[in-house]
Amino acid sequence: MPNPEKVLQTVAWKGGRVRMIDQTALPERLTYVDMSDWRDVAQAIRTMVVRGAPAIGCSAALGMALGARGIIAENKAAFRKRMEQIADTFKAARPTAVNLGWAVDRMMGVVDRVDGNVVDIKDALITEALEMLREDIEANRALGAHGAKLLPDSVSILTHCNAGALATVSYGTALGVVRAAVEAGKNVRVFADETRPRLQGMKLTAWELLQEGIPVTVIADSMAATLMRDGKIDCVIVGADRIAANGDTANKIGTYSVAVLAHHHKIPFYVAAPLSTVDMSLPTGARIPIEERETVEMTHLEGIRIAPEGVTVLNPAFDVTPHELIAAIITERGVIEAPFAKNLAAVGEREAVLA
Amino acid sequence: MPNPEKVLQTVAWKGGRVRMIDQTALPERLTYVDMSDWRDVAQAIRTMVVRGAPAIGCSAALGMALGARGIIAENKAAFRKRMEQIADTFKAARPTAVNLGWAVDRMMGVVDRVDGNVVDIKDALITEALEMLREDIEANRALGAHGAKLLPDSVSILTHCNAGALATVSYGTALGVVRAAVEAGKNVRVFADETRPRLQGMKLTAWELLQEGIPVTVIADSMAATLMRDGKIDCVIVGADRIAANGDTANKIGTYSVAVLAHHHKIPFYVAAPLSTVDMSLPTGARIPIEERETVEMTHLEGIRIAPEGVTVLNPAFDVTPHELIAAIITERGVIEAPFAKNLAAVGEREAVLA
Repeated sequence: MPNPEKVLQTVAWKGGRVRMIDQTALPERLTYVDMSDWRDVAQAIRTMVVRGAPAIGCSAALGMALGARGIIAENKAAFRKRMEQIADTFKAARPTAVNLGWAVDRMMGVVDRVDGNVVDIKDALITEALEMLREDIEANRALGAHGAKLLPDSVSILTHCNAGALATVSYGTALGVVRAAVEAGKNVRVFADETRPRLQGMKLTAWELLQEGIPVTVIADSMAATLMRDGKIDCVIVGADRIAANGDTANKIGTYSVAVLAHHHKIPFYVAAPLSTVDMSLPTGARIPIEERETVEMTHLEGIRIAPEGVTVLNPAFDVTPHELIAAIITERGVIEAPFAKNLAAVGEREAVLA
Repeated sequence: MPNPEKVLQTVAWKGGRVRMIDQTALPERLTYVDMSDWRDVAQAIRTMVVRGAPAIGCSAALGMALGARGIIAENKAAFRKRMEQIADTFKAARPTAVNLGWAVDRMMGVVDRVDGNVVDIKDALITEALEMLREDIEANRALGAHGAKLLPDSVSILTHCNAGALATVSYGTALGVVRAAVEAGKNVRVFADETRPRLQGMKLTAWELLQEGIPVTVIADSMAATLMRDGKIDCVIVGADRIAANGDTANKIGTYSVAVLAHHHKIPFYVAAPLSTVDMSLPTGARIPIEERETVEMTHLEGIRIAPEGVTVLNPAFDVTPHELIAAIITERGVIEAPFAKNLAAVGEREAVLA
């Protein structure tokens, strides 16, 4: 059983400031940064001090609550105008994960909804952000439990990038399923793609699982195919940055590659994500914006140049896996299978009724 | 047209010593190392100062010629015994590439064949090694020309690892096809997988093509699938370390992954290799020995630790692509298509008649 003392909390509200694990320092050091300026929170999202779709959504929510506290406004209209500027900055921080826009819109909803003075709204924003953090952990525990039921008692799971506690507030999505399976007494072994260029699999997923003693083996991204052919992978579980209405899923670059390989080797490929990652406004994945990050992430490693001077490199941060390659989407409301367009819409409607 | 002044020669015989490009220093510095002790040549193969199946075959041949010169033996039997020890050391330097054993056996054939004293044999060994270097360049130019005919006038080629001048004596196999296509006036663009863990695509292939002004873009290994889906790759061309009698091909780890992805996207996948890479003694790829290299190649980069302390990593240096995924094998005797077992055997018989 995981030791609850060791459960990581990636982002938190602490003494009126936003506290987060500095993920750029892992695995060398587990350090926390405290931010008292909302602009620092936006910058932390941009520079990937915090990353992972649910984690950056919750960070933006905390950042907006922090920003709200600093506003000196004579009336609600002036306050709202200033909040809109903050909202725009957070939304623009990273383009692909829908959770960022979802969290920002939800916080702006509080601004519009709360009937009271600016002080009341500021308090309500903090309450809402903390509620989102609580919901995130709850959703991950729920989806973890649903996902664990899909797995045999002894299972070897391949994951890509980090969809763990470090990508969420805590517990994780893909690694939430791993944790829930371990808690259910299953014999779980994880293979982690190292995930070039930023090596989140090597640096974050492996580190996170090592903390809890869950067996993990790191491979280069290009080794997954051979492991699959050799029968060493029972299933693939990854997270998601945005899921279109038809189930097409944007996730870390290389996810699509893993999905094709799993398909070829007849290995089930699962996406684990909270419903806040589903973007019903996009009918397919074709229009999900794909962030292109700085080429220095490819040409340098640990500050050292690895590429020849003057070479052209590509650095898309995400790719889109078409729904045909996805066996199921594991959510906090249960496991959703094909046809995804129909079944995602049905869950969405049920959610609306429950809300 | 490539500038002949700029043509790289990876290994050479120079003033009674073995000279090779130090590939561990690229792309920062183009430096040469001169070796006057055969043990240094074997060590250079082990530590990948020189790498690439044809290059290490020719390096071993030069190394044996060098070793022979240093032997003081009272008779041919004593000389032969010492040569056998040297041969065993070279054969054991790296296990996967068949060219190493092929070259060593060919050199031992000279020892057995030459009717004369030890001095005559030593001279014949140098002559034979230099002949192998000459043949390698000739084979690459021939297979390059055959391969270039397969390509459309404007073509975007994906390659993995380095099967270039740096993997051979000169000109290259997969990159020999690229060079021949450029020389034939075709409009060629290369995408180079960076090829973790040792980054030969990033450090060698990109560098080598940049020297000649051939357009090259480096991608992380995990990005190839998305480029294929987006229609940006017309074909894949890779080298080979050992080809079984049925066409199954061992090559750098990640090659099998690329082959599956190409198959899924209906993109032709070509192997370019001299016939010396074909091992007719192995009916299939199942028994090709796969080298496991030190885990430090995965856990560290440029001497800096990137992995968490204590994590398990895998580091197989090669994988095997089954013949079903290969559109054609491009050799110096022409383009060989399926059924490979029959067609490789036919070429082998023709070779035997010609020899």
